[in-house]
Amino acid sequence: MKHMGESMMALVCREGGALSLEERPVPQLQGDRDAVVKVTLSTICTSDLHIRRGAVLRAVPGTVLGHEFVGVVTQAGARTGLHPGDRVAANCITFCGECWFCRHGYINNCERGGWELGCRIDGCQAEFVRVPFADQGLTRIPDGVTDENALFLGDILASGYFGAELLGIRPGDAVAVIGAGPVGLCAMACARLFGAAQIVALDLDENRLEVAQRQGLCDAVVHPGKEDAPAAIRQMTPHSGADGVVEAAGGADTFQLAWQLARPNATVALVAMYEQDQCLPLPAMYGKNLTFRTGGVDAVHGERLMGLLAAGKLNTDFLITHRAPLNDILEGYRVFEHRLDGCLKWAVTPYQH
Amino acid sequence: MKHMGESMMALVCREGGALSLEERPVPQLQGDRDAVVKVTLSTICTSDLHIRRGAVLRAVPGTVLGHEFVGVVTQAGARTGLHPGDRVAANCITFCGECWFCRHGYINNCERGGWELGCRIDGCQAEFVRVPFADQGLTRIPDGVTDENALFLGDILASGYFGAELLGIRPGDAVAVIGAGPVGLCAMACARLFGAAQIVALDLDENRLEVAQRQGLCDAVVHPGKEDAPAAIRQMTPHSGADGVVEAAGGADTFQLAWQLARPNATVALVAMYEQDQCLPLPAMYGKNLTFRTGGVDAVHGERLMGLLAAGKLNTDFLITHRAPLNDILEGYRVFEHRLDGCLKWAVTPYQH
Amino acid sequence: MKHMGESMMALVCREGGALSLEERPVPQLQGDRDAVVKVTLSTICTSDLHIRRGAVLRAVPGTVLGHEFVGVVTQAGARTGLHPGDRVAANCITFCGECWFCRHGYINNCERGGWELGCRIDGCQAEFVRVPFADQGLTRIPDGVTDENALFLGDILASGYFGAELLGIRPGDAVAVIGAGPVGLCAMACARLFGAAQIVALDLDENRLEVAQRQGLCDAVVHPGKEDAPAAIRQMTPHSGADGVVEAAGGADTFQLAWQLARPNATVALVAMYEQDQCLPLPAMYGKNLTFRTGGVDAVHGERLMGLLAAGKLNTDFLITHRAPLNDILEGYRVFEHRLDGCLKWAVTPYQH
Amino acid sequence: MKHMGESMMALVCREGGALSLEERPVPQLQGDRDAVVKVTLSTICTSDLHIRRGAVLRAVPGTVLGHEFVGVVTQAGARTGLHPGDRVAANCITFCGECWFCRHGYINNCERGGWELGCRIDGCQAEFVRVPFADQGLTRIPDGVTDENALFLGDILASGYFGAELLGIRPGDAVAVIGAGPVGLCAMACARLFGAAQIVALDLDENRLEVAQRQGLCDAVVHPGKEDAPAAIRQMTPHSGADGVVEAAGGADTFQLAWQLARPNATVALVAMYEQDQCLPLPAMYGKNLTFRTGGVDAVHGERLMGLLAAGKLNTDFLITHRAPLNDILEGYRVFEHRLDGCLKWAVTPYQH
Repeated sequence: MKHMGESMMALVCREGGALSLEERPVPQLQGDRDAVVKVTLSTICTSDLHIRRGAVLRAVPGTVLGHEFVGVVTQAGARTGLHPGDRVAANCITFCGECWFCRHGYINNCERGGWELGCRIDGCQAEFVRVPFADQGLTRIPDGVTDENALFLGDILASGYFGAELLGIRPGDAVAVIGAGPVGLCAMACARLFGAAQIVALDLDENRLEVAQRQGLCDAVVHPGKEDAPAAIRQMTPHSGADGVVEAAGGADTFQLAWQLARPNATVALVAMYEQDQCLPLPAMYGKNLTFRTGGVDAVHGERLMGLLAAGKLNTDFLITHRAPLNDILEGYRVFEHRLDGCLKWAVTPYQH
Repeated sequence: MKHMGESMMALVCREGGALSLEERPVPQLQGDRDAVVKVTLSTICTSDLHIRRGAVLRAVPGTVLGHEFVGVVTQAGARTGLHPGDRVAANCITFCGECWFCRHGYINNCERGGWELGCRIDGCQAEFVRVPFADQGLTRIPDGVTDENALFLGDILASGYFGAELLGIRPGDAVAVIGAGPVGLCAMACARLFGAAQIVALDLDENRLEVAQRQGLCDAVVHPGKEDAPAAIRQMTPHSGADGVVEAAGGADTFQLAWQLARPNATVALVAMYEQDQCLPLPAMYGKNLTFRTGGVDAVHGERLMGLLAAGKLNTDFLITHRAPLNDILEGYRVFEHRLDGCLKWAVTPYQH
Repeated sequence: MKHMGESMMALVCREGGALSLEERPVPQLQGDRDAVVKVTLSTICTSDLHIRRGAVLRAVPGTVLGHEFVGVVTQAGARTGLHPGDRVAANCITFCGECWFCRHGYINNCERGGWELGCRIDGCQAEFVRVPFADQGLTRIPDGVTDENALFLGDILASGYFGAELLGIRPGDAVAVIGAGPVGLCAMACARLFGAAQIVALDLDENRLEVAQRQGLCDAVVHPGKEDAPAAIRQMTPHSGADGVVEAAGGADTFQLAWQLARPNATVALVAMYEQDQCLPLPAMYGKNLTFRTGGVDAVHGERLMGLLAAGKLNTDFLITHRAPLNDILEGYRVFEHRLDGCLKWAVTPYQH
Repeated sequence: MKHMGESMMALVCREGGALSLEERPVPQLQGDRDAVVKVTLSTICTSDLHIRRGAVLRAVPGTVLGHEFVGVVTQAGARTGLHPGDRVAANCITFCGECWFCRHGYINNCERGGWELGCRIDGCQAEFVRVPFADQGLTRIPDGVTDENALFLGDILASGYFGAELLGIRPGDAVAVIGAGPVGLCAMACARLFGAAQIVALDLDENRLEVAQRQGLCDAVVHPGKEDAPAAIRQMTPHSGADGVVEAAGGADTFQLAWQLARPNATVALVAMYEQDQCLPLPAMYGKNLTFRTGGVDAVHGERLMGLLAAGKLNTDFLITHRAPLNDILEGYRVFEHRLDGCLKWAVTPYQH
């Protein structure tokens, strides 16, 4: 085990977006709600790419990247309820659990938190990471759940659940999910949990559509580049469109597609992180009475999702298409960013010294 | 096809509960929202037994029994939207769709309806049946759905859905269902639709528990005669009991069991038809803050359930353990009432002349 | 009373927006759900101005304008449940009450209705008007409610209620209403019904702000032209903004103001009819997790609102700042459009022959 | 100010229910989430009488009674966020804010709390009281709110709000409140906040009905001893009964009245503390589809209620019909228990040495 004063390897994002694998001191507890975790498996997320491109205003240059991981607690503050040796999955959002926003489930707007890890404080693409408010932000992994299965709990699975939950799905509903990438696939899995009977995956990438089908996550696929997607959805559904739409792609084209796929009085959940403003054509959609829900994940359902993983009602480990040690993470960024070789998620195993 | 003035066979319940298979005139349209349906498959329900025992105050002696069936429309009033030849499943509740209660989804309290078929007006244990407000009370059966699968749509499947819906289940919840008979099994299937991760079936009949398990409708079974059921449930659940309880058995013992299985702040759905008053031990349950939902099925989700059957997300035809023509229906009552030979549901096929 | 074949005066909107007061035949019943109503009081609405400006695509040239009125039934179809002599208030939306959308409360998307009166079929700025689906679209006025108080029930009061209801207000919430015109003032009155403790009116028109205050509809006013409105709202509220925002003004500036006034995780109800697309600055509002609800009024609460008027819990007759017979309606349009002389609503009394 | 080691006067309830005003040591902080409060105003509650009668199983003999009070902080633990001199109102329920139940708003079932003050640990009918988890259980009183107005925030006002909230009231609803005592009167005030248009007070005590009317808390009164209460309610309401019923009286007769006053599909909130089991006549109410909500107050809305008091939208100080120093509290119990001299609430001012 590493001790105070020792160093570790970590991936740092510099001003301008340059990445470098560097030696950093092993982090230590700073308060009684902190924990230090030895990272056993982490992964690269699209929002890491947003930071690199300078699209995340709150990001602080020089920070160790990464916010999606599992690991083993090495040090635990007195108020965390955790102990060294505990296997834990991390929440991508840091939250106190005490402020007005936290008490209402709006943890993304925690007065003392928000997206901190790998953005404003050192993250998990490293050998060790310090987690503030660890009593809230870490969820214990039961014995029957593997690292691989728990890896996505606190970010993309939480985001998929968030998107599905925002829709207010009732059993039998038809749900369209735009973007069959990691978050979209998780949204499909969660829409099923709420009873959606007809889940339609939309993507320009046929490989991703095929994954969605092969994993049984959708009931139909639509390729918006090859067919008139709104017309296709209208034909599949009894009330002129989907009962709910998750927009997980984040483009101007997919934003416009989203409201066109929705039936009147439906909800559109915008769970992607947009880099541009979008045009809301209110006169054209007048009378359609849509609800748009925007925002970053309120990743408040860690225990619930862990229970579903443990009970075998959710399974996300198929998302790991690639894995390599921290030593190779720069290659991981390249492959993940350009979706080379069918990459969905690149898992990062510990540094090989 | 039968014509006006012709007769048919029908099962009539006389004052005192005597049943007789009798000749009756084929029913005819009485208004423009009526339909006459040739019954292709019907079944016997526990509430038919309640009528026989005199426990249903609104029942009218001399009525043809039966309220759970599928068939083919032979005559359709101008305002029904139906046509001769349409395959349809019936709703056990008659409702106008227009009164204040109907407009709020409380169809069981329709000002011009309620439980009518086989109770106050002639029902479906016959060759033909007249259905009032057929535009509301009949649901078209799509080609891919068999009579067997659609048979339970309007009564026990609706009741199971009603029970599950009343619980306000969220994905991952633990749900206990007391009574693994036809309604209880349907409640389990529907609880899964809402995302319940841990469905526990309770019954004194081991055969029924085995059916629940074999059909994949539950995750665990508890036999209240052989183990301390509340303790067993508490051990299986993280918050001292089930997040929701469906009481589908209707006894004094099961009523008491229901609230004891529930965790604090849970909902108990009482979907059974009780023949006795029940004792609510408020001092003993003080502070447990339970919600009790009572009542007859608001069978308002016919289209939704048909969509789920058509999409293969629900399947109930395994409930048919016995089938025989209307000629043998008295034997059916005997077998069904006493649960002989593992009987769950006795399906009635057309009379053999 | 007018008879078949007789003529009446009516305000017609021609292609290009020209208005003319013309002689037209008195309308007659066309079906058994129609009623013909003698208009005793009607009014001019901002959406009439939208039609004149060509901004309502569904509008049909040559139609008699007007959709907000009260009157007395002169002819009633057999299925309306109405009788000649009944005093009624009209719903601005025509709806069948039977289709999937109507059964879910989405009457604005009725498959056989929508905004018809004064848009696609002849409206109420006339001596008589035919109302289709009158069993749904007309609400009886009890004796204790005056024409003046019932006049706005089916349009602007319904819209204000719709806006307030969309917010999901809980007692004690802070609500900002942008636009203290007729709809905004109704939204304030309705927000109070849901328990809002702090209602803030925003408008550039000081006269309107003063009306809001004098009528006790708001707890504070903000003039966005004279102060930094988001900062003012943040200062008044404990959680960095309003718990809900009603945007009833319809401009690009007010659209941007709306989301800035909202606290994180709040709902913004866009009840105005926009003539332009709007920019949704998703990167700037990322993490604020707002919900936007768009659309035309689901004016489904006629009975509820009439009950509130009858019980004295709502009062809207103060909105009538001007009144004159149908003869002077062109002057009414001029005064109302330019908000001359403090005009909020111009009431139209019967034509003086 | 009292110091460690000093003594104070306090009302103690002995085994068997005997009360005595005794000298006790001034309480001290025991942990960093504790506060010690100098009681400036407290009051006697019906649940104190339940303890005396031995009807509260969890009560510990020898405890200082009282759980409804306001005061000034004299000592504050480091994690309370409070400071000596802060004016505070107390929550009658002790809760940690961290366990699963607390995080879901079910504070009455807090794993480390529940009804503690004046029941299992020393309460407020004393000069000083120690409050555990004071960061959760004390709400700061703003300058504009008097002690008298804040006194009931954490118990009877919270209970009234709880009852009204459980009903799911929508604007315009009719609400019946059985029992026009302190909790019932608070429930009426809160039902108004949710928009109830027709609030009917029921009580056998004409004085209390008169208070309800004089304070504008109800729209009508019914005396069940002098008229057929269910018939009276049915006559006042359009759908055969009240949309919601609060049972705040706690007797067998009022329990039976409650479900009879409710319209089909309504909710009955049982907020009284019953000393006896009650009979639920399920066969007689079959098909009425009622929801019963039971339990002790989830007094989680302290800030919300304080905001409503501060904004003048709630006012409860009229409940104080009597006031006297702690010296006279035994006389207070006598007057309060027997409702002598129109007593609603007896306020206890500081001991006169």
